[in-house]
Amino acid sequence: MTPTTDRLDTFLGAVAATLPDLTITQDPDLLDPWLTDWRGRFTGRACALASPDSTHQLASLVRLCAAHGVPIVPQGGNSGMSGGATPDVSGEALLLSLRKMNRIHAIDSAARRVTCDAGVVLQTLHEAAEAQDLRFPLTLGGKGSATVGGLISTNAGGTQVLRHGSMRALVLGLEAVLADGQVFSMLTPLKKDNRGFDLKQLLIGSEGTLGIVTAATLKLLPAVAERVVIWAGVPSLHAARKLLLHCEESMGDALEGFEVMPSASLDAVIEHLPGARAPLGEPHAWHVLIEVVADRAGAATLRDGCETTLASAFEAELVEDAVMSANETQAEAFWLLRETVAPAERARGPAVQHDISVPVELMPDFVEETAPLIEAKWPGVEAVAFGHLGDGNIHYHVIAPAATDARLWQEGEGKQISRYVHDLVTRWGGSISAEHGIGQLKRAELARLGDPVALSMLHAVKHALDPKGLLNPGKLI
Amino acid sequence: MTPTTDRLDTFLGAVAATLPDLTITQDPDLLDPWLTDWRGRFTGRACALASPDSTHQLASLVRLCAAHGVPIVPQGGNSGMSGGATPDVSGEALLLSLRKMNRIHAIDSAARRVTCDAGVVLQTLHEAAEAQDLRFPLTLGGKGSATVGGLISTNAGGTQVLRHGSMRALVLGLEAVLADGQVFSMLTPLKKDNRGFDLKQLLIGSEGTLGIVTAATLKLLPAVAERVVIWAGVPSLHAARKLLLHCEESMGDALEGFEVMPSASLDAVIEHLPGARAPLGEPHAWHVLIEVVADRAGAATLRDGCETTLASAFEAELVEDAVMSANETQAEAFWLLRETVAPAERARGPAVQHDISVPVELMPDFVEETAPLIEAKWPGVEAVAFGHLGDGNIHYHVIAPAATDARLWQEGEGKQISRYVHDLVTRWGGSISAEHGIGQLKRAELARLGDPVALSMLHAVKHALDPKGLLNPGKLI
Repeated sequence: MTPTTDRLDTFLGAVAATLPDLTITQDPDLLDPWLTDWRGRFTGRACALASPDSTHQLASLVRLCAAHGVPIVPQGGNSGMSGGATPDVSGEALLLSLRKMNRIHAIDSAARRVTCDAGVVLQTLHEAAEAQDLRFPLTLGGKGSATVGGLISTNAGGTQVLRHGSMRALVLGLEAVLADGQVFSMLTPLKKDNRGFDLKQLLIGSEGTLGIVTAATLKLLPAVAERVVIWAGVPSLHAARKLLLHCEESMGDALEGFEVMPSASLDAVIEHLPGARAPLGEPHAWHVLIEVVADRAGAATLRDGCETTLASAFEAELVEDAVMSANETQAEAFWLLRETVAPAERARGPAVQHDISVPVELMPDFVEETAPLIEAKWPGVEAVAFGHLGDGNIHYHVIAPAATDARLWQEGEGKQISRYVHDLVTRWGGSISAEHGIGQLKRAELARLGDPVALSMLHAVKHALDPKGLLNPGKLI
Repeated sequence: MTPTTDRLDTFLGAVAATLPDLTITQDPDLLDPWLTDWRGRFTGRACALASPDSTHQLASLVRLCAAHGVPIVPQGGNSGMSGGATPDVSGEALLLSLRKMNRIHAIDSAARRVTCDAGVVLQTLHEAAEAQDLRFPLTLGGKGSATVGGLISTNAGGTQVLRHGSMRALVLGLEAVLADGQVFSMLTPLKKDNRGFDLKQLLIGSEGTLGIVTAATLKLLPAVAERVVIWAGVPSLHAARKLLLHCEESMGDALEGFEVMPSASLDAVIEHLPGARAPLGEPHAWHVLIEVVADRAGAATLRDGCETTLASAFEAELVEDAVMSANETQAEAFWLLRETVAPAERARGPAVQHDISVPVELMPDFVEETAPLIEAKWPGVEAVAFGHLGDGNIHYHVIAPAATDARLWQEGEGKQISRYVHDLVTRWGGSISAEHGIGQLKRAELARLGDPVALSMLHAVKHALDPKGLLNPGKLI
């Protein structure tokens, strides 16, 4: 028996003695599905998988981990994009599932908010809100598995950030277990609270490195009463940005989403998606999806507003062509095209993907200037930009030359390209992680390119709140 | 010469040698006006007053302070409510004025944002935005002196928080000088940036204890094109809350402010303000001021919307009486009544004031249950609540019995009452500082009533970022 397994046995013995009701297992069949991230990029090992069913139980477990020096990797739906919920290969960490903590405690429809456990799945939250004629506005592709705790820990974004902000803007109250097992309890939603700097905001987006989110009080909005999705064709990304400004000016708060894709991406979607067809008759260099939404108060005038906005856009020659969804089926069909871009791009062959942001007004120049640089430097590759133009956040994929060995290319040329893209983004004042987080995927790149002052602050705060480094080690910093 | 003055001379000599262009003085005539907070509650001393004119100069000065162990008290307009910008009486601290750093660098009207120095006065910022047909929505009584840096450091609130949030929600980018003189530089406004936990949010509201805010990029909004102010009379605070819900439901995002005052406060205003008269013919137990605002896109339908909302409010018997401002003069006149409550209450005699919040829906019960408790416990006092009901934040004044010695009462019974009010607020899950911050005024109360886990996090982060404790000592924690 090695000293390590000896120590582990002592820890597991203490857990069994102290928390006899805790669900904890070392069975490889139960552990395995959670040791690889959903995209299959990272695989780790864990000494056990624990699934507490209450904050109290979780806090007791963390105290035992702290006493025995056992690192903890918290995990929600395991649908993160950066390997932030996958343990390292040492096998020393305890994998801590939040999925059993999945109660929705209370929806207050008058005050428009919900308090729920960290393990509640986003889709479940959406449905619970809808049942009360309300909605939780944040949504993203992984909504069927992503949990509230994971969304908070990664400050998740998605397609409605333009209007409602990312997760950070929607969290009214928070509960988290800290590295020493103490419970930070600020679930009570106070609209104004200036008792010191904002610890809730500090925990949001900390990727489980400062604390384990166990519950939250979240903002809800009135249900959508009317929705219009506009599909427009424009000659360039600069034209798309001009159209964005026009829509912001003309539609105000009704504007909820502004997504772009180049013609090549739409072609890939049409090819990939059975029965799909282009919304516009003629080809256009760039396509724009505009989501416009109203609650009951604004429903009556929404469609007229969209027509006015489009008419003036045509008049000012801001669009080449455009069509408005006539009903929900059409609106859904437009969104399906947008949501199929990522899988359709993946089907085209191996690629490296970058989730980047720059100030919104710089994005057209950024794409127009950097894509040719990349394509010249690595002949045969293709740089494709699509996504959330309204947030200055695009997903920037660089597709390998035809007939390339995927694994070989991604580890060699692909890595060089990613470094180059991140260099460019940093030079343009942007972020190498707009909405996916750092996790383990971008940890080395953050260390390489992050502002040294910001990095030293991140390290200082991390060390202050988790001096033993037990919370999600190897992630973020 | 004592060792202290010896050390001070060494420090001032180093400053003169290293920063010959820095404005720094020990002249009591120049120092004195800034050593007492505007409400006259706190008076301190300082070894000198320095007024750097650039971040670079300020950072060099802070490095010298760090090297010589000189504490720093940053100060903007000296219009804070909690003594957060007043040095202690030791005379060891350097008073650091940000007022010379008052440049507005750039307003980007298309992107709707402004980058400016920390010393820019709020009123100046308002005017600069208006000149571009834009607005900065945060406003408060001290706008003629409050600076951007002070507003950020205290996460200031005001009357438009209901719709636009407090300062925290309006800061897109931030620059600050840290305790060791390093510059944290995140002025570039990225709508999405997940490179670790949010250091910008950590600095906002830290009252100069973690860093000195030197510049910011702030969010601007389209100018107000149409505004309606409604004055309504309701029978109770519960009725006011019901009216608030009705307005939120019916007016949506057009609702910008929802302020309340009891009849006694309105009476005090009428008595205090020459020429003022009550907006409604009959007396009402509670008065509500509702601000409804639209930019160009929504201007045409705003007034109709208000009429519809009021009509249904009358129908549902949510108001006893109400009147809509017919023009800007009337709107201003209604606001003047609201803004005169604080000075009119002060004129009634000595009082202790509390800036508190509880969840919005609990506020009516809180006031109705606690006011009688206080008035019974201390016969002759009167508890008055007014302010931002829409944010769950009221200013809760307890007025001394008639013919009381102000100073004596405030130091004796007044202090006991404040402790009692803070105990009650804490028991109700609320905050003892909704928008005014902790400063030195509420530091002992925060230590007494704050959640121990939150307090230990505050201390740990403070120690991590300012290990020598040189930034604004004696404030907040």
